[in-house]
Amino acid sequence: MATTQHSIEELRNFFEEKIKLTEFKNQPVQLYEPIQYIMELGGKRVRPVCTLAAAELFGADTEIAINQAIAVEVFHNFTLVHDDIMDEAPLRRGHATVHKKWDENTGILSGDAMMILAYQYLSKNTDSKFHSLFSNFNKTAIEVCEGQQLDMDFEIKPTVSLDDYLGMIELKTAVLLGESLRIGAIMAGASENDANLMYDFGKNFGIAFQLQDDILDLFGDPEKFGKQVGGDVLACKKTYLFAKAYSISNETQRQELVDLYNSTSIDGSKKIEQVKTVFNALDIRNRAKADMNTFYVNAGIALNSISADDSRKKILKDFAESLMVREL
Amino acid sequence: MATTQHSIEELRNFFEEKIKLTEFKNQPVQLYEPIQYIMELGGKRVRPVCTLAAAELFGADTEIAINQAIAVEVFHNFTLVHDDIMDEAPLRRGHATVHKKWDENTGILSGDAMMILAYQYLSKNTDSKFHSLFSNFNKTAIEVCEGQQLDMDFEIKPTVSLDDYLGMIELKTAVLLGESLRIGAIMAGASENDANLMYDFGKNFGIAFQLQDDILDLFGDPEKFGKQVGGDVLACKKTYLFAKAYSISNETQRQELVDLYNSTSIDGSKKIEQVKTVFNALDIRNRAKADMNTFYVNAGIALNSISADDSRKKILKDFAESLMVREL
Repeated sequence: MATTQHSIEELRNFFEEKIKLTEFKNQPVQLYEPIQYIMELGGKRVRPVCTLAAAELFGADTEIAINQAIAVEVFHNFTLVHDDIMDEAPLRRGHATVHKKWDENTGILSGDAMMILAYQYLSKNTDSKFHSLFSNFNKTAIEVCEGQQLDMDFEIKPTVSLDDYLGMIELKTAVLLGESLRIGAIMAGASENDANLMYDFGKNFGIAFQLQDDILDLFGDPEKFGKQVGGDVLACKKTYLFAKAYSISNETQRQELVDLYNSTSIDGSKKIEQVKTVFNALDIRNRAKADMNTFYVNAGIALNSISADDSRKKILKDFAESLMVREL
Repeated sequence: MATTQHSIEELRNFFEEKIKLTEFKNQPVQLYEPIQYIMELGGKRVRPVCTLAAAELFGADTEIAINQAIAVEVFHNFTLVHDDIMDEAPLRRGHATVHKKWDENTGILSGDAMMILAYQYLSKNTDSKFHSLFSNFNKTAIEVCEGQQLDMDFEIKPTVSLDDYLGMIELKTAVLLGESLRIGAIMAGASENDANLMYDFGKNFGIAFQLQDDILDLFGDPEKFGKQVGGDVLACKKTYLFAKAYSISNETQRQELVDLYNSTSIDGSKKIEQVKTVFNALDIRNRAKADMNTFYVNAGIALNSISADDSRKKILKDFAESLMVREL
């Protein structure tokens, strides 16, 4: 008998409760206190909630996959701790980053310990499932590192192609979302094919979500999203908008675009306006939206192909839908 | 039929050949080039050689455990890359450290990738053995992080107890040596009891070896060991000699010792002489040697207890013996 499914909100609350009860703290305090700190900082918990929702979709109880949900969240937070050092970020979720609250060495070592803890949680109560969980997770983990490296590489390159950009965000953010879902499916005893479809759903949705993020940065309503418009442009960050514009422009336009985008001498709001003008001339907003929709549709196709009742897929489908901004 | 055993030298050469043939390099280059670099810097290869020797002791071919030997060496080198960042070390094995040759971010991220690669190699061709390999290795991996944290904690503490010091070196260096041996035993199909005895052998030997290192730093012949005498004293590093002296001295002596040891105002060679005088008055050199011997003997007892022909244990016994300095 398949169990009753819970709403995303219920799953998130369930996960938060579990995290509060999870004692990451241990000896030596200096190593474990930062782990407890970052794990309790909250966040949207998208990945562990996906793990739990995927397990429920296949009829399993959330308890079956709770350790694996913790694993993906600990792993995700390990990447945040190390990325924040690399990006010299002072804040995370409105609080001091680990390397700012303590120091860089603490950030490095506590991050290392978190990666090992992630493997530990991944292995809990898995029996014969561990081998496939492990080999999938391991592949994804190394891909996330590769994605972070590509992202850093792009910072010092004057331009980036569309394929390279898509490859980077796939590795840096999308594969872990896919993996979170696949892990839940595997823990629930789903077939390999269904588990991989779950992964495809998450990976495609993850790419769509990142493209939306890129579009919103320049074209979003600042009152609605509380973010400075054009932050990526000001930071000369090569986003999908840039890569798309670059890919469809001719030689002359390309040079203009690269020069303008990488310029740090043009006044902030003026630069944003000029970049917008170039993008508008190339209809980049609509083209990017169309591409985003393609990934979103592909995500839906993967979800639809899973051999389970459509009614059981509704929660994840609605969750994905709720994360997409319709008035884009 | 048990296979012929190879000498330590042969195993080391075999391992070096394998490392040369192992293609760590991949895309993105910036992530994998540092891994290839550090892995080819050489070193004594003690841990992977132990893995291979342990496998052969139980009659297995080295090929059986080669991936796991690579795993422990990659893991060990991951700890070196991150530790070198934390210690701001410019050199490793006579060459620039990864964070000096590239930069800190590269050191952090390539180190992360190495840890994941270590898990990947650990899992190769393991079948049903993977679960026990993994749970042992995972426990050891987190302990190594704890040991590194304790070592950093001790740097800013005025004193450290004997138990705390022993606990630190056990975690920071000894458990991984023990684990390298246990992994070889498991891969060769040894019983759980024999595998754990291998671990005990390595752990106890690792502690003995570290105590020897501490003694040599102050009492070793600089011409023989090519190291500056008293480097630990100059760096105010709380070694076993310090912890032992602290543990057996009275209140007044303790205060004198702590003040002297942590002093940075006394001229270098004068400080070394004064510390030596205090240690000599307490007969620390001989006491430390006696303690070192206890761990060494315990290592031998563990090795002797393994259910295999004594003749097959000779290579590891002789290897351990060769690493001990008799004229200490």
